[in-house]
Amino acid sequence: MKAFDELLAHRRVTEALSSVAERLSWDQETVMPRGATEQRAEEMAAMESVLHERRTDPRIGEWLDRAEPQDDEDARIIELIGRDFSRASKIPARLATELARITSLGQGIWASARANEAPEEFLPTLNEILTLKREEASALADGATGATELYDALLDDYEPDTKSADIAAIFDRMRPRLVALREEILGADHQPAALTGAFSHDAQFRLARTCATAFGYDWSRGRMDLAVHPFSSGRWQDSRITTRVVEAEPFNCIYSTIHEVGHSCYELGIDSDYAFTPLGRGVSMGVHESQSRMFENQMGRSRAFTEWLYHRLVEIFGPLSTPDATAFYETVNRVAPGYIRTEADEVQYNLHIMLRFDLERDLIAGRLDTDDLTEAWNTRFQKDFGLAVDRPSNGVLQDVHWSVGLFGYFPTYTLGNVYAGCLNRAMRAEVPDLDAGLTRGDATAGTEWLRENVQRHGALLPPRALVEQATGEPISEVPLLDYLERKFGEIYRL
Amino acid sequence: MKAFDELLAHRRVTEALSSVAERLSWDQETVMPRGATEQRAEEMAAMESVLHERRTDPRIGEWLDRAEPQDDEDARIIELIGRDFSRASKIPARLATELARITSLGQGIWASARANEAPEEFLPTLNEILTLKREEASALADGATGATELYDALLDDYEPDTKSADIAAIFDRMRPRLVALREEILGADHQPAALTGAFSHDAQFRLARTCATAFGYDWSRGRMDLAVHPFSSGRWQDSRITTRVVEAEPFNCIYSTIHEVGHSCYELGIDSDYAFTPLGRGVSMGVHESQSRMFENQMGRSRAFTEWLYHRLVEIFGPLSTPDATAFYETVNRVAPGYIRTEADEVQYNLHIMLRFDLERDLIAGRLDTDDLTEAWNTRFQKDFGLAVDRPSNGVLQDVHWSVGLFGYFPTYTLGNVYAGCLNRAMRAEVPDLDAGLTRGDATAGTEWLRENVQRHGALLPPRALVEQATGEPISEVPLLDYLERKFGEIYRL
Repeated sequence: MKAFDELLAHRRVTEALSSVAERLSWDQETVMPRGATEQRAEEMAAMESVLHERRTDPRIGEWLDRAEPQDDEDARIIELIGRDFSRASKIPARLATELARITSLGQGIWASARANEAPEEFLPTLNEILTLKREEASALADGATGATELYDALLDDYEPDTKSADIAAIFDRMRPRLVALREEILGADHQPAALTGAFSHDAQFRLARTCATAFGYDWSRGRMDLAVHPFSSGRWQDSRITTRVVEAEPFNCIYSTIHEVGHSCYELGIDSDYAFTPLGRGVSMGVHESQSRMFENQMGRSRAFTEWLYHRLVEIFGPLSTPDATAFYETVNRVAPGYIRTEADEVQYNLHIMLRFDLERDLIAGRLDTDDLTEAWNTRFQKDFGLAVDRPSNGVLQDVHWSVGLFGYFPTYTLGNVYAGCLNRAMRAEVPDLDAGLTRGDATAGTEWLRENVQRHGALLPPRALVEQATGEPISEVPLLDYLERKFGEIYRL
Repeated sequence: MKAFDELLAHRRVTEALSSVAERLSWDQETVMPRGATEQRAEEMAAMESVLHERRTDPRIGEWLDRAEPQDDEDARIIELIGRDFSRASKIPARLATELARITSLGQGIWASARANEAPEEFLPTLNEILTLKREEASALADGATGATELYDALLDDYEPDTKSADIAAIFDRMRPRLVALREEILGADHQPAALTGAFSHDAQFRLARTCATAFGYDWSRGRMDLAVHPFSSGRWQDSRITTRVVEAEPFNCIYSTIHEVGHSCYELGIDSDYAFTPLGRGVSMGVHESQSRMFENQMGRSRAFTEWLYHRLVEIFGPLSTPDATAFYETVNRVAPGYIRTEADEVQYNLHIMLRFDLERDLIAGRLDTDDLTEAWNTRFQKDFGLAVDRPSNGVLQDVHWSVGLFGYFPTYTLGNVYAGCLNRAMRAEVPDLDAGLTRGDATAGTEWLRENVQRHGALLPPRALVEQATGEPISEVPLLDYLERKFGEIYRL
């Protein structure tokens, strides 16, 4: 066999095994009996050890040396396999094991500290995690120890092809406009009301299925279950979504469903020829988030779609606390002061991310000590949100990410929103009748545009090149900010 | 590390991976989206290739040579690992691949031939399978090609420690008494009526859950889903059951559930210290079937339990077509002429197995040609059941087993019933108040006796030694036959 074919054949099995591991995680979060935790941990560890061995198999290096690409696709496959092999090989086994152990413990310690409102119970562990993550970053950066190199090495795992300096530049341009918009909104005379009422569990779940169908989710290659924290899972022929139901808050179920449908449609929309190859997955966390956010926000929270949604809710639950579709649209997009990132509206969400991005860069760089983290969080929050954090679970302890070692992940959320802004402008220009479909509860013209221009390519192009090819313009935060100012300017009559 | 500890550590990971593969099969039969078939086949193949490599890892041979047992448990572990390693190593990779391919195709060809009532569409494939199974058997029997050695080598995979000659001797003693009992029953004046009526899907499913609870199924380590062909799946902390619902036939759902609960309780009842070791599973198919059959028949179809069940059905569905608990008990145990093994009552079931055992031994021995199989089936069926087979799907095409290469599996069903007969006699003697519990819908005294005397030992003792230790008597078909003659003699007033 030729070296390139050896590479592909080897990777094919690795991809299949990693898909199995992902399915196992899905099982754990949805259907697994609660008493099976220890067994599952051992099963996952066994899968990880097999995967680690395959990913660092020295034959990959030999095949890479000899592989001859026939076209751009081959070249990209070789590039991606080389990148994975290089990353996997640079991390010493001891470090990987220690990181796995501490981040597995970390999540439990964080959850308990959050429940006890006691950062001091978690911060020593966070310190240990940081030490190991710095060590990991330095290994990945070939021994470099500068602040920028360290953070970039971590970021590269989630958003290859983007540097923290680029992100910082974008964020610095976004922040003043977002802070100003937020202040204008909260000071406006017109303030939409929140939705009140009771919305039964089963009816919400059925409505969520209807919404998933409206966005073109392929039920023959997916399914929907309940989970504490909604997520999507799987690829190719099998990408499942989860949702949650809170009886007083139907938007929670509806929009987390549409969000996850966005992620799943991306995976299901990839060219099926790419299955079991490195091209067969979403190319970065940022691009992934751009798809889920466009489903959720630019389409799902549009005037057009909420018109349809309003009538569905009235049909199912009877008259609502909002008198008509316009008031309902405003309620869906209501901006209210709040501490929690995952509950934030389109305007405030990105401010949450910027806060975390700056703090975690300082933590990795050693410029910020974990002892000073709570204060740094609270000071910054006061500044951007005009609000004093009332307790740690509403502040520094609210997110799971750092406790499981996810440093460099947060900025991809806002990068996803920036990509979504660019893609939305192009999509709206090229699909002029999108709103007509959305008003009928049919978002598939949008889904199809995204599949054609973004999703089907999988990881063939790097993230920024992919988005720029789809939009014909360089990446910029301007379309997102323009969109937000226009949309919320109208709603709040600014 | 000492060689024995190396063996254990290596096996631990293999056990975890094989448990993952089993969970993947469960997923496929219960919740997997229907469009994911090809992907799942590739995932399963990847798992199998990893497992095969681990099972034939030459280091196992080296560790086995140097391993020093400290006690009986160690010795048994070494014996079991040695047995698995020897079997896995004896089968050439080419043969394993060909068998996997043909049996994977075989199931589809069989299903289509059955649907078309056309044995000739399936028999050529069966012939290919037989050729490969003979080759496999010969490899396992170290090159021997005699009829007995070949069949015994296959049987050994499902029921180690038992030879086909032993089974033939038991079956030869059972058959005349069963044929006679069957004839007496069908000729009796008193004939219980079948149950008629409609029984809603959801209510049946809920009742099945209640029945599982009645038998002590541990829901914190299991769950119940729907499947086309009910099965149980998994071990240690996670053994799940499946059931099916036919609206006109509530006994189908109820008794297949109780049967699978028997299998799952066995796996969940094994000493938790044995998890991830070769001791941590049911020791043979026969012993497994003894547990499920005792749950289903000796307890589940007893006068005492059906009394409780009768009242539950009346409570849920209103008055039944059977007027009282006694008539209901007789209806549950009704013996009627029929072609299908899986629908057979306690009396006729074993006659089905004997027919298949004799035919498959002749097929493997080359004494019976596949061209003559249909006729051989029909002749034997007429003789034992007094009934002419009306179509192939009611005859030679009814079971999936041969199409997936399961030769040597069938006799373990009746062996399980024989073990159940022995165990039931001992259990009844040692748990005199079992019926009092069953009448209240509480079978846990039986489950506990079985756990203590059979299940907790896992694979520590060979099958027959395990049953003989539990009963204090040699294995014999007499308790089963006595039980059947007494029970059905009473019901049919013989």
